[in-house]
Amino acid sequence: MTTSPATDQADTRADEAAVRALLAEEAEAMRTRDAELAVARYATDAMIFDLAPPLGRRGHAAAGVRAWLAGFDGPVTIETTELEVTVGGDLAFAHGLRRMSAVPAGAAEGFSFWYRATTCLRRMQGRWRVVHEHTSTPFHMDGSFRAATDLQP
Amino acid sequence: MTTSPATDQADTRADEAAVRALLAEEAEAMRTRDAELAVARYATDAMIFDLAPPLGRRGHAAAGVRAWLAGFDGPVTIETTELEVTVGGDLAFAHGLRRMSAVPAGAAEGFSFWYRATTCLRRMQGRWRVVHEHTSTPFHMDGSFRAATDLQP
Repeated sequence: MTTSPATDQADTRADEAAVRALLAEEAEAMRTRDAELAVARYATDAMIFDLAPPLGRRGHAAAGVRAWLAGFDGPVTIETTELEVTVGGDLAFAHGLRRMSAVPAGAAEGFSFWYRATTCLRRMQGRWRVVHEHTSTPFHMDGSFRAATDLQP
Repeated sequence: MTTSPATDQADTRADEAAVRALLAEEAEAMRTRDAELAVARYATDAMIFDLAPPLGRRGHAAAGVRAWLAGFDGPVTIETTELEVTVGGDLAFAHGLRRMSAVPAGAAEGFSFWYRATTCLRRMQGRWRVVHEHTSTPFHMDGSFRAATDLQP
């Protein structure tokens, strides 16, 4: 295998763009309430550390996303900031902050909060796939054990 | 660059062992209350998404760990389970569940809870360094917004 540094750099830029496009599917899927699109980028056995319990679970199924979306009226808006993507060979990882805004089903008013998202990807049969994702808020270590849903980037 | 598949596999196994050894420093540093060891594996500008606010911060300083350790009497015990490490080229990532057990300074009794840990690493000048770490508990989405510190793997 022989590649020039210039080719390597161009490949890395293309890979980073591909990973960023894949991560952008999240906002699009939530905006359009498309459960199939929401899970399309995940490997079958991806390990998910989600905002809500349990600690971790294997796989990200469209049925689960559909049930979750049913809890909200209209589009769920995801905004991302401070996204950093690192790629090398057939691995990549990304971290950033996301704001979710939504209106609970039947509610008069919506809510929004910022959380952290870390995504780990692997190129499998030529396609980037999410093999691990970790989303969370911190919690207040003041004895209240409240989730810190009031933080700003 | 020419390598045989057998050499590649041996390299990957050696890299995975190196990353696992590096991650094991966390438990050793907490057990011995060694703030310098606790931060030695982090890149200077590592992005940390910690258990406590803020959402994220740059770098992991020994002074911060020292102040944090002062809040506890005796060793802080970290147990890790379900650790999975992926390496490829000069990138690696790992995820697993950790249980922290500690006794608050001056308290009669200790506490323990399970949390999730995701670590992203990069080989820099031949040494593996943590460039991103994300630790968290989920939170109960039942309206209470309590951190879920009562979960078991």
